[in-house]
Amino acid sequence: MEQTKIFLDEKDMPRQWYNLAADLPHPPLPPLGPDGNPVSPDMLAPVFPMNIIEQEVSPDRWINIPEKVLEILTLWRPSPLYRARRLEKALGTPAKIYYKNEGVSPPGSHKPNTAVAQAYYNKEFGIERITTETGAGQWGSALSFACSLFGLECKVYMVRISFEQKPFRRLMMESWGARCVPSPSTETKAGRDILAASPDTPGSLGIAISEAIEAAVTDPTGKTRYSLGSVLNHVMLHQTIIGLEAKKQLNIAGVKKPDIVIGCAGGGSNFAGLAFPFVADKINGAEIEIYPVEPTSCPTMTRAPYSYDFGDTAMTTPLLPMHSLGHAFVPPPIHAGGLRYHGMAPLVSHAIQEGLITPRAYHQLECYDAAVTWARTEGFISAPETSHAIAAVIDEAKKAKEEGKEKVILFNWSGHGLMDLTGYDAFFQGKLVDYPLPEEEIKKSTSVMNGLPKPPAKFE
Amino acid sequence: MEQTKIFLDEKDMPRQWYNLAADLPHPPLPPLGPDGNPVSPDMLAPVFPMNIIEQEVSPDRWINIPEKVLEILTLWRPSPLYRARRLEKALGTPAKIYYKNEGVSPPGSHKPNTAVAQAYYNKEFGIERITTETGAGQWGSALSFACSLFGLECKVYMVRISFEQKPFRRLMMESWGARCVPSPSTETKAGRDILAASPDTPGSLGIAISEAIEAAVTDPTGKTRYSLGSVLNHVMLHQTIIGLEAKKQLNIAGVKKPDIVIGCAGGGSNFAGLAFPFVADKINGAEIEIYPVEPTSCPTMTRAPYSYDFGDTAMTTPLLPMHSLGHAFVPPPIHAGGLRYHGMAPLVSHAIQEGLITPRAYHQLECYDAAVTWARTEGFISAPETSHAIAAVIDEAKKAKEEGKEKVILFNWSGHGLMDLTGYDAFFQGKLVDYPLPEEEIKKSTSVMNGLPKPPAKFE
Repeated sequence: MEQTKIFLDEKDMPRQWYNLAADLPHPPLPPLGPDGNPVSPDMLAPVFPMNIIEQEVSPDRWINIPEKVLEILTLWRPSPLYRARRLEKALGTPAKIYYKNEGVSPPGSHKPNTAVAQAYYNKEFGIERITTETGAGQWGSALSFACSLFGLECKVYMVRISFEQKPFRRLMMESWGARCVPSPSTETKAGRDILAASPDTPGSLGIAISEAIEAAVTDPTGKTRYSLGSVLNHVMLHQTIIGLEAKKQLNIAGVKKPDIVIGCAGGGSNFAGLAFPFVADKINGAEIEIYPVEPTSCPTMTRAPYSYDFGDTAMTTPLLPMHSLGHAFVPPPIHAGGLRYHGMAPLVSHAIQEGLITPRAYHQLECYDAAVTWARTEGFISAPETSHAIAAVIDEAKKAKEEGKEKVILFNWSGHGLMDLTGYDAFFQGKLVDYPLPEEEIKKSTSVMNGLPKPPAKFE
Repeated sequence: MEQTKIFLDEKDMPRQWYNLAADLPHPPLPPLGPDGNPVSPDMLAPVFPMNIIEQEVSPDRWINIPEKVLEILTLWRPSPLYRARRLEKALGTPAKIYYKNEGVSPPGSHKPNTAVAQAYYNKEFGIERITTETGAGQWGSALSFACSLFGLECKVYMVRISFEQKPFRRLMMESWGARCVPSPSTETKAGRDILAASPDTPGSLGIAISEAIEAAVTDPTGKTRYSLGSVLNHVMLHQTIIGLEAKKQLNIAGVKKPDIVIGCAGGGSNFAGLAFPFVADKINGAEIEIYPVEPTSCPTMTRAPYSYDFGDTAMTTPLLPMHSLGHAFVPPPIHAGGLRYHGMAPLVSHAIQEGLITPRAYHQLECYDAAVTWARTEGFISAPETSHAIAAVIDEAKKAKEEGKEKVILFNWSGHGLMDLTGYDAFFQGKLVDYPLPEEEIKKSTSVMNGLPKPPAKFE
């Protein structure tokens, strides 16, 4: 019988996270404050607990995973590494397709890898309440879950269009004792200002971030902090356990290295989690093609400039060096809510600028096509975000067939789509459309960055 | 670090199913035809393919699992055996609580264990289309999934109240290419008759079974058969892979035998799947308490007589020897739709009559209480059916604490509740109620069995 899954024993779990910042050919650029100077840790203290800020700026290559974090991760980790044999057969490809199944976590995605770590560090620092934003709901669910296990309060601002499209996400968060409101809400000044200007806005991650940060920093008790589910260095760090496990599992499967590594990327965390340990290998000379995949309707990596920009719409965050469609960009209402973000993780953007990874973009309809093929071969129903990775995997597997090459493709199946079935329904009913983005629209949306500091156009 | 999960390698998967019928102290009673005589395999041929009928009546203790079935089972099997350490700590119990996580399957429950086997045997027999019923939707989803992988058409009659309470279940089945309609429907004579008599009926599994059987046997091409997700011997058989895996995993954990085995029981299959291999040990002298758990609102095992009765409302099935509330019984609209069945698997009923297992019943509200405790300690959101097992586990763990005994409790976490969040919502809003069943109602509903053949009151 052919093997489908490669398990890893809990005792063989990675005990350290990998920090790509230590190995980049050029050092990462710092975030900048409103004065154009690098932000100091103190300036971030009202937003994040200091133990997380220290991680955010750490130059260390390896960072120990606390025992209490590992213990909770064992509720679903190590996640199984799957061989997608049924998809391979359906495509008739000589490629070997492997994937990490991150859908086995209680909230159903990779997000709790960092949610558990962040809840732990907040708890250790004496924090009692965490605020956050969520797009599709994967992150809000994950943080609700993590807070529940550490006895922390959790408040989630959910992008309005997703709140309406995915009503069960709120119920999921409430099952873990969290509170979830649609964003923009009337509970913050940022939310009220936006509602006054655009009462019918579908919302965006940028807006929801503004609200969640405001709610954290204005709490008079000082016991509230904000948590971000993607973009920042410490989030990428916590996700690297995915790629580190995958390396051990590929090794068990007798695979020396993958030829291709793929992950979908909205803020960048599931992609980085799988890919960064392989980016390290590439830096050290390994031949690996590495593809972050985004929606054509929100083409941050493939069409937006590398610039300094705010992480949120209300311009409350430090300026981050990243590809950005502009902090005021409101992406079209695709179902992959987790990919509707104007920016990108600075470390992912940096790796693009270094030529280490190559972004790609797919349309909504081809992604749903790929997801249906997946469901009817591999059995699992994918999150709409994950379907972007699958679309790229299928393309690469077909290419391997044309070339007659037995390539090893590794990708991150970042989460299941059981909470996202309305998207499948709309797809089957022919109600979904693509949203090609005209060049003028990108020019307009990115013009908000005129006058902001610019990182070097090329690393020398 | 304390271990949470015990994995089993795919190569160590059980290669045979266990058939309790071979070991019962008294032989199982046969199903009876309308004439009161045992039904012959030929009489079942319009309903099931002959290879499944042979399994249904097999006296063999061990039956080989076909290679193609095993291969598909590896998409999620062997399922991990978990130690519920966080619940143990929260309860302060000396008991060791282990559970099989059957929620890792693509449809999210134990049901595909038999769905895959049944789809395989139908395909082998040349069948092209399968009809079935579903209560909460777990079974319909599982069969849709299995049919999709074998290239079979699938049509699901879903109990109307569940169809309305759980709209995403239909979308899930459609994602795998199946068709799902609410039952009673206007597509069958059985459905139309019931709608004419009771237009507002919430439906029941008994009604839906009648419709699905009618749709199968009236197909003029002869290429349609019916599939049942519980109750029958071959379904119990296919589920025993759960208990057989659990035995190997407990062995790895250094546990010689569990003291207590628990599963929820609607038709009996997830309970039997975990418990029957341990019932065998009990027959051979092992001291194990074995508890099937049902809702007080549908108290088949705890309050209904052991009798011959029809499996469906329209009286189209053979008469089965089982505990039954009467084939016309329509259970109150609890959210645990999969436990809303008037009868019970004949093998489970038989084991009760032999004194090998001891049924228990719980109210809806105490089950949701248990499920919330579970979600906030063990992290996973449970199906409302599964919550019945959890309620019994918590009671036994508390009892172990009172007695100061380090008992080993093993139970079947039969599925996740991500498709059942409306029930949690109603629970949090205080909208759920219990449905204690007056004795007169049971007397009335069981009176439909007057005049039907009676099995022996006691096995001698």
